[in-house]
Amino acid sequence: MQLGLVGLGRMGGNMRERLRAAGQEVVGYDRNADRSDVTSLAELADKLQSPRAVWVMVPAAVTDATIDALAEVLGEGDIIIDGGNSRFSDDAPRAERLAARGIGYVDVGVSGGVWGNVNGYALMVGGAQEHVDHLMPIFEALKPAGDHGFVHAGPVGAGHYAKMVHNGIEYGLMHAYAEGFELLSAAEMVTNVPGIIKSWREGTVVQSWLLDLLDRALDEDPDLATLTGYTDDTGEGRWTVDEAIRLAVPLNVITAALFARFSSRQDDSPAMKAVAALRQQFGGHAVHKR
Amino acid sequence: MQLGLVGLGRMGGNMRERLRAAGQEVVGYDRNADRSDVTSLAELADKLQSPRAVWVMVPAAVTDATIDALAEVLGEGDIIIDGGNSRFSDDAPRAERLAARGIGYVDVGVSGGVWGNVNGYALMVGGAQEHVDHLMPIFEALKPAGDHGFVHAGPVGAGHYAKMVHNGIEYGLMHAYAEGFELLSAAEMVTNVPGIIKSWREGTVVQSWLLDLLDRALDEDPDLATLTGYTDDTGEGRWTVDEAIRLAVPLNVITAALFARFSSRQDDSPAMKAVAALRQQFGGHAVHKR
Amino acid sequence: MQLGLVGLGRMGGNMRERLRAAGQEVVGYDRNADRSDVTSLAELADKLQSPRAVWVMVPAAVTDATIDALAEVLGEGDIIIDGGNSRFSDDAPRAERLAARGIGYVDVGVSGGVWGNVNGYALMVGGAQEHVDHLMPIFEALKPAGDHGFVHAGPVGAGHYAKMVHNGIEYGLMHAYAEGFELLSAAEMVTNVPGIIKSWREGTVVQSWLLDLLDRALDEDPDLATLTGYTDDTGEGRWTVDEAIRLAVPLNVITAALFARFSSRQDDSPAMKAVAALRQQFGGHAVHKR
Amino acid sequence: MQLGLVGLGRMGGNMRERLRAAGQEVVGYDRNADRSDVTSLAELADKLQSPRAVWVMVPAAVTDATIDALAEVLGEGDIIIDGGNSRFSDDAPRAERLAARGIGYVDVGVSGGVWGNVNGYALMVGGAQEHVDHLMPIFEALKPAGDHGFVHAGPVGAGHYAKMVHNGIEYGLMHAYAEGFELLSAAEMVTNVPGIIKSWREGTVVQSWLLDLLDRALDEDPDLATLTGYTDDTGEGRWTVDEAIRLAVPLNVITAALFARFSSRQDDSPAMKAVAALRQQFGGHAVHKR
Repeated sequence: MQLGLVGLGRMGGNMRERLRAAGQEVVGYDRNADRSDVTSLAELADKLQSPRAVWVMVPAAVTDATIDALAEVLGEGDIIIDGGNSRFSDDAPRAERLAARGIGYVDVGVSGGVWGNVNGYALMVGGAQEHVDHLMPIFEALKPAGDHGFVHAGPVGAGHYAKMVHNGIEYGLMHAYAEGFELLSAAEMVTNVPGIIKSWREGTVVQSWLLDLLDRALDEDPDLATLTGYTDDTGEGRWTVDEAIRLAVPLNVITAALFARFSSRQDDSPAMKAVAALRQQFGGHAVHKR
Repeated sequence: MQLGLVGLGRMGGNMRERLRAAGQEVVGYDRNADRSDVTSLAELADKLQSPRAVWVMVPAAVTDATIDALAEVLGEGDIIIDGGNSRFSDDAPRAERLAARGIGYVDVGVSGGVWGNVNGYALMVGGAQEHVDHLMPIFEALKPAGDHGFVHAGPVGAGHYAKMVHNGIEYGLMHAYAEGFELLSAAEMVTNVPGIIKSWREGTVVQSWLLDLLDRALDEDPDLATLTGYTDDTGEGRWTVDEAIRLAVPLNVITAALFARFSSRQDDSPAMKAVAALRQQFGGHAVHKR
Repeated sequence: MQLGLVGLGRMGGNMRERLRAAGQEVVGYDRNADRSDVTSLAELADKLQSPRAVWVMVPAAVTDATIDALAEVLGEGDIIIDGGNSRFSDDAPRAERLAARGIGYVDVGVSGGVWGNVNGYALMVGGAQEHVDHLMPIFEALKPAGDHGFVHAGPVGAGHYAKMVHNGIEYGLMHAYAEGFELLSAAEMVTNVPGIIKSWREGTVVQSWLLDLLDRALDEDPDLATLTGYTDDTGEGRWTVDEAIRLAVPLNVITAALFARFSSRQDDSPAMKAVAALRQQFGGHAVHKR
Repeated sequence: MQLGLVGLGRMGGNMRERLRAAGQEVVGYDRNADRSDVTSLAELADKLQSPRAVWVMVPAAVTDATIDALAEVLGEGDIIIDGGNSRFSDDAPRAERLAARGIGYVDVGVSGGVWGNVNGYALMVGGAQEHVDHLMPIFEALKPAGDHGFVHAGPVGAGHYAKMVHNGIEYGLMHAYAEGFELLSAAEMVTNVPGIIKSWREGTVVQSWLLDLLDRALDEDPDLATLTGYTDDTGEGRWTVDEAIRLAVPLNVITAALFARFSSRQDDSPAMKAVAALRQQFGGHAVHKR
């Protein structure tokens, strides 16, 4: 099947490769002419037969502009797929705008990161059944080889929603391992922290792909001595907690993992300065002066 | 190699089977004569050649009594292995008591639960290098077939310590998935929660054995409608947090998971009754009367 | 000074009383004719001399509609004050709409609840300096008698922002006392929980007005036996956490207090059902069936 | 009434002063001869008439040694009072040791810090009714002037238990204010953080003695610019969480406050280094290298 693919960065470029390897016909467009198969969105539209399907894989900040530009060169019966890290609440407004032109919209949460080209990309899809059915050859080509890695999660927005929750869970999982690593590292009697982590990769309740990666990281740097703990967050964690608050779902674990990232970026905590000030006031406790 | 095995319940019985299948010679003792190979600890000692190795696999509450009884029938150069869920801080005192009689002591944290007989048991071992070396044929027979699943974590106590931290991490992992499951279940637009969970089993960052089990549980009962949320805890989670407090390690995620279990067992929370009372006092907010 | 006051419910009615007792001239309007001094907003506007000041004290859900209706009968140089529980982010849009008509806007976070009529209302004010200066006689009449209880927190929105944070702190304070109450109640050796709470009212680090109220509640019902722990939340707590997420401020304590309210309203927790299901799968742990 | 007082440091010295001002007869002993009224514990015992009461006010680390030394010079019918920051679980063993000599034991949790000499000391008392009754003149002299500030909390240990929970609550309260302070400080629209804190001292739900102290600290240093957030903890917070774990009481707020202190003392967090390592592994996310 034919697919237009807009955005050929690390993710988009790898996806074009995987799709072509699976026998799909991809016309790619990127602002960077070196990567691009065509010189403009108009040319991309021309090269595809109706009904066209165009997958957008660009940074979240320019997704809406890209979709709107695409809408100008597409028409009735075509479908736009957003595979980027959009917030789920952006999906319904887009679908409405496009529906006014007769263009379909499907949102896809994509997991797999730098490993996706080899292992396949896990796909969480939101949209109308007919659109999803039509795009199945593309999804089949991108997804991992096994029985899993694809889901039609619900109507428009549900794909990005599922991906958001996936990432929220990821925050919690990573932090659970991280806390265990820190506790082992602090324990006087434990002499072989990387060995313990490695041993857990088989036969334990905590075995997982993330654990494999932690072992890999410790193989490269047993004390993680080359790293600092400064850690960014990329939106999905915050959106997950925002949703928990909206829906009154207690999300203590995932929220604690998110807050720990916030703390990791603070040189000094205003809150703890206030605590220090209070202790000095009521108890004459020593404080650390600058 | 020969091994005495005391305690032939679910875990011990399966381990005897796995050891024998691997060609090891096991003499098992259990209070329940139907399972037991011998009628007493004395007979068990008689059937083993010096230096003897005896693995204790009994409930934590009777481990010390069992070890002390064993010490009466063993002697200089023998080794006792505790594979049960002992608290790591019990190990050093035991090792000292036994050392006074010339008996060695090795502690092993065992993971694998009901799946261990098939997949092998992950082993985290604490003890002297010479004892561990001597016991390697037993460890090889019990551990999973792959490259992982065994570690010599440090001196006496380190095996149970590693297992304790493993279980603490397990609390955090389970709760991260659980929170994601609840959020998906609460979201209006998500129509296929079990399908999403299943899809995550390949190609995602959150793939793990626990996720496979969650999928399996949802296959049996898609809404978990037959269960209540009442959840026990078995000690290791509490010990993990106790250690975090002792060592001043911030353990927000694992502790939140532990506290959620405590909450799950409360019919009504005294703390929230106090909050309700305060809101009524200062704001005239409506309360729910019994 | 003259003040129009729209909304004469529990809060608004008490405020009219306090203002009049302080010698201010209040013209009140309420949809309920029994409480109202005038029959319409138009009549209210007529009774006030320019430049008019009208304080809106209505439920958040109807605040915008009320302000827009007021704008129709007010004019250049008049000031509208919102003393309700609006979200701070609603203030700037309102101020812009009103500025287009030459009408000023001031937001006031009001604390004091059912006690305000006696003790005075704490006022957190956002708006232009000139508007705040003009309204000082009203603020003076409403605020408590002492040196505190009034602040000009910043430009439009800052009043409601300060009130929002006040309420977020309130969540944390209440829950800290509540947890202590629960722990004392669980301790075997403590025989006099209400007596301990009462004793803390003087000479301790934890003395506060909220503690006084908890003591009062325990005087009425020593075990809080007539209450359930089901506890609502009224928006400000959620907004506080939303802001923490937006600004990357780790807010572990206040968020834990908010999530505890969410939990208090669940009959059974889907998350804990997932945990129970996982424990059953991997360990054969007993679950509680419905 | 007569009282022996052992330990005349900041707390003990102030207490001697307050007791004498109230007309009680105090014989004080301190290792520092400059402060001491007598040269030895034996001389202290000699100067008191039977039945003697001796209050021990020394650092927790030397409390047991001090009590045991005192027991050598006291006798049948005398009472030892421990007013230091002992862990409640130390009280019952002490009481038993002393009971074997016919000496009574009473534990007192004392709050008030550097303010106690002026305001009085809040006293939480554990012990037998007859001992407490006998000591009432001392308690009356030390406690604040009002109706509160004294409680007989239960049998031996209950006094220190109540004080421990008091301090746990204190952790939560301080951190709730601290988080609010940080959020206000981060908010773009808030221009007057110290003014807001000050204003809350009257008419609000969050008014308290701790808030007064925070205002006082901000008067001295509006941005807390002279302080760092490095904050110690002194045992009671940890014991409170230990108890919560033992009794299965979910203590999310107080524990979060304790963990925040732990974090404040870390230059870099091993846990966050593990999170950074994982993000680098699966997503190629940038890390901060040392």
